[in-house]
Amino acid sequence: MSLQGNAMIGQSGGPSIVINASLVGAIEAARDIEEIETFYGALHGMDGVLHEQFIDLFREDHELVERIRYTPSSALGTCRLKPTDADLERCMKVFKAHNIRYFFYIGGDDSQLACHRLSELAKASEWDMNIVGIPKTIDNDLVITDNCPGYGSAARLAASAVQFVARDAEAFGNCEVIEIMGRNAGWLTGATQVGRQEDRDAPHLVYLPEVTVDPDKFLSDCHEQFDEWGYLVIAVSEGFAFAESEIPTTSAKVDEFGHARLGGVAEALADMVEEELGVRSRFDKLGNLQRCFAYAASAVDLDEAYAVGESAVQRAYGGESDVMITIQRKSSEPFVFECEDTSLTSVAGETKVVPPDWLNEEQNGVTAEFVQYARPLMTGRSEPLPQDIPHYPRFQKHLIQPKLGEYERD
Amino acid sequence: MSLQGNAMIGQSGGPSIVINASLVGAIEAARDIEEIETFYGALHGMDGVLHEQFIDLFREDHELVERIRYTPSSALGTCRLKPTDADLERCMKVFKAHNIRYFFYIGGDDSQLACHRLSELAKASEWDMNIVGIPKTIDNDLVITDNCPGYGSAARLAASAVQFVARDAEAFGNCEVIEIMGRNAGWLTGATQVGRQEDRDAPHLVYLPEVTVDPDKFLSDCHEQFDEWGYLVIAVSEGFAFAESEIPTTSAKVDEFGHARLGGVAEALADMVEEELGVRSRFDKLGNLQRCFAYAASAVDLDEAYAVGESAVQRAYGGESDVMITIQRKSSEPFVFECEDTSLTSVAGETKVVPPDWLNEEQNGVTAEFVQYARPLMTGRSEPLPQDIPHYPRFQKHLIQPKLGEYERD
Repeated sequence: MSLQGNAMIGQSGGPSIVINASLVGAIEAARDIEEIETFYGALHGMDGVLHEQFIDLFREDHELVERIRYTPSSALGTCRLKPTDADLERCMKVFKAHNIRYFFYIGGDDSQLACHRLSELAKASEWDMNIVGIPKTIDNDLVITDNCPGYGSAARLAASAVQFVARDAEAFGNCEVIEIMGRNAGWLTGATQVGRQEDRDAPHLVYLPEVTVDPDKFLSDCHEQFDEWGYLVIAVSEGFAFAESEIPTTSAKVDEFGHARLGGVAEALADMVEEELGVRSRFDKLGNLQRCFAYAASAVDLDEAYAVGESAVQRAYGGESDVMITIQRKSSEPFVFECEDTSLTSVAGETKVVPPDWLNEEQNGVTAEFVQYARPLMTGRSEPLPQDIPHYPRFQKHLIQPKLGEYERD
Repeated sequence: MSLQGNAMIGQSGGPSIVINASLVGAIEAARDIEEIETFYGALHGMDGVLHEQFIDLFREDHELVERIRYTPSSALGTCRLKPTDADLERCMKVFKAHNIRYFFYIGGDDSQLACHRLSELAKASEWDMNIVGIPKTIDNDLVITDNCPGYGSAARLAASAVQFVARDAEAFGNCEVIEIMGRNAGWLTGATQVGRQEDRDAPHLVYLPEVTVDPDKFLSDCHEQFDEWGYLVIAVSEGFAFAESEIPTTSAKVDEFGHARLGGVAEALADMVEEELGVRSRFDKLGNLQRCFAYAASAVDLDEAYAVGESAVQRAYGGESDVMITIQRKSSEPFVFECEDTSLTSVAGETKVVPPDWLNEEQNGVTAEFVQYARPLMTGRSEPLPQDIPHYPRFQKHLIQPKLGEYERD
C-alpha cells in the first residue's frame, strides 16, 4: 500500500562533489510518482526542517535541475546539527503539519541515526510515513555498503593531487607530505596508491589512521625511500598518530559534534623529515577541496550517487522504511553495481575502517586488493571540462509557507 | 652568422604546469637547425651545469618528448640556486669544455639575471655564444612581457578552486578564506575574480599584496558581505598584510634566497572573522598545487609556453643574445599573441605588480580591466581528462660524459 501525501528531502554534513546527483536522482524519481503531491527540499538539512524552511522542488525548472546534478556541494544547503529529543519531536510536528509521508536524508552515519530515531517516533505516534537514508560520505566509512557516494570523486582528487605534487617534489629532489581527510578511516589516503604505477612513483609511504607506527621506523622508512629515489612523497591521513602520539595532530578547536578539528600532522611529519634527513620538506593539505573540486569528479561516483537517490524514492514508495540504500558491487571491470537497502540500525553509529589485511606488512602502504577495490570508483569523466571558469546554477527556491510557530532550539 | 656547436637548456625555480611545453618547444625547434649538433638538458638547472649533469635531448624518443609537453612540473629537474661569481665562472668553463654555443634558461627574474651575467662573462672571455632567457613564472611578475607562461594555468586553478570551495562555504553559511601564492604581486589572487559572474558569487573580497588595508575596514567589509549573502569568501595573497602588519603572515623559516617562507595569512584572517562575526570560518591554502595541478591547465598558457621555447631557439640561432622572449598580445578575443624579445637588463631584478588603477577604490577587489586582461589566459583545454589517475612520462636520460673535474660550491 503506497502512501499519498508530500515528500521531503534534506542534505546533511560535509558536502561532496556528487551529493547533488543523489538529490536530483530523488527528484526525478519522485516526479513519476503520482502519490507524491509535493516534494519539499529542506534548506540546510534538519535545520530547515525545524524552522520550516522549505522549497518546492517540483516547481524547479527541469533543465536547471539536470544542471544541478553536476554541481558540486549541497544545493539545498547543509548543516552539522546533532538533533536533541526536542528537535526530533519538532520534526514530527512539522511532518504532520505538512502531511509529509516520505522523508529522505542524504548524509553519513550521524544522519542515518537521525533517520532511525525519526522512524521510531513516527511509529510511536502512529504517523504513517516511510523514511529512507541516502548514503553520502567522502570518508567511505559507512558499513555494509560496498562504498559511499562521494568517496570515488574525493579519492580521485586525492590520488591525482599526489601525482601532481609529486612531480614538483621530484623536480626539486624534496620531501613532500600531503595531508588527506580521514579521522578514523584511511580510505581516501589509501586510494592515493592507485596512482602509483612504477616503484619510483609517488606515494612512497602511506599512513592511515588504522595503523600505529613507531617514529624510528617511520624515519628509517623515509631514509630508505629517499635514498632510493632522490625524492620522497608521503600521503598521510589527518587522523594518523604515532604509537606514542608524539606529534601534535590535533588543534584546540572542536567542531559542532565536539570532535577535535584535526590538522597539523603533515606539517609535523615534514618538520621531522627535514630535521632527520636534512632534505627540504614541504607539506600540503587538500583541505576543503576534497569535498568540492569538481574537476576530479568520478563518472562512476556520479552514477552511484544518482542511483541511490532514485532508489531511495522508489523503495520508500514501495513501502520500505527505516532503511538506508546500499551499493552492491556486481563486478569491478567493468564496474557494475546494484542498489540494495539495509536497516538503519545496522549502519547508524558504525564506522568501516580499512581491514587490517588490506594494509601491507610494514604498515606504510595498502595492498593490491585495496587498489583493485578503489580504482574502479575513481574513473574520470569522458567529457571535456568547461573552457571558462565553471559557474554553477542555484535553485530558484520557491518557498513553502510555514504552518507552525517559530522554533527555538535549547 | 649562425654559430655551430652544441646547445644547452635548463629549468629553474618553481615548476609550473606548462614549463615542459617551453622545453619541448625548444627541443623541437632545435631539431630543425643543422648547426646545433647536440642539445644538452641540464639536470636541476644551474646545479646540473656546475656538476656536468647533462642528458642528450636529441636522443630522447620523439613521441615521448611530445608527451612531456603536457607533463606538469620540470621534467629536467629544477633548483633554487643563486649563483656566485665562482659558479658563473665554472659555467663558462663547462660551456667551453662542451662547446656550448647556445644556452637557454627557463625561469623567473632571478634566472634572467643569471643569463645576463653569463652573457657578460661570455663576451669578456670572447667565447661566441648566444644566451636567451625563456620566461616562466606563475606569479606573472616579469616586466615588459604581456604575461608569463605558467600564469594562465595557475590562475585557472586558483579561480576554479575559489568557485568550488565557495559552494561548500555557501552550503554551510560559513566564511572561507583561501590563500593564494604571491609575495609581492597579486596577479593570481586578482584572477580569482574572473569566476565571479553574479554579485552573490565568490570571491566577495580580494586582498592583494599591493594594497594596505585597515583591519577595521576589513572587518566592516566582512560584515557587510556576510550580511548580504549569508556566506563569505575571501581570496588573499600570501604576501598580504594590514597597514599596521598586525597579523602574523610570515613564518620563521626562510627559503634558499633568504626570503621568508610565507603562509599563515588565511588562517589569521579566518580567526579574525570568526571572532568578530561569530561565524564559523575556515581556510584553505592552495600551496604547491598551484604549480602542478594539471587538471587546470590552460590551453592558451600551454600554447604560449611552447611558443616562447620555440622562439628562443630560433632567435638565438638568428643571432640574438642577452635577451628574454616576451609575449605581445595582439588581441584578447580571440586571444592572439606574438613572441618578441627584450634585453635581459630590462627584466632582471624587476617586478611587475598589479597597477593601482586595476584595483578597486575600496582596495578589496580588482577592476573589470584586470578581469579582461586575465580571462583569456585562463581558457581550459577542449580534450577530456584522462579517465585513469594521470601518469606522466619521464625522460630516458642518456647521460653525457663529464669533461671537467668535480666542482665544490663555496
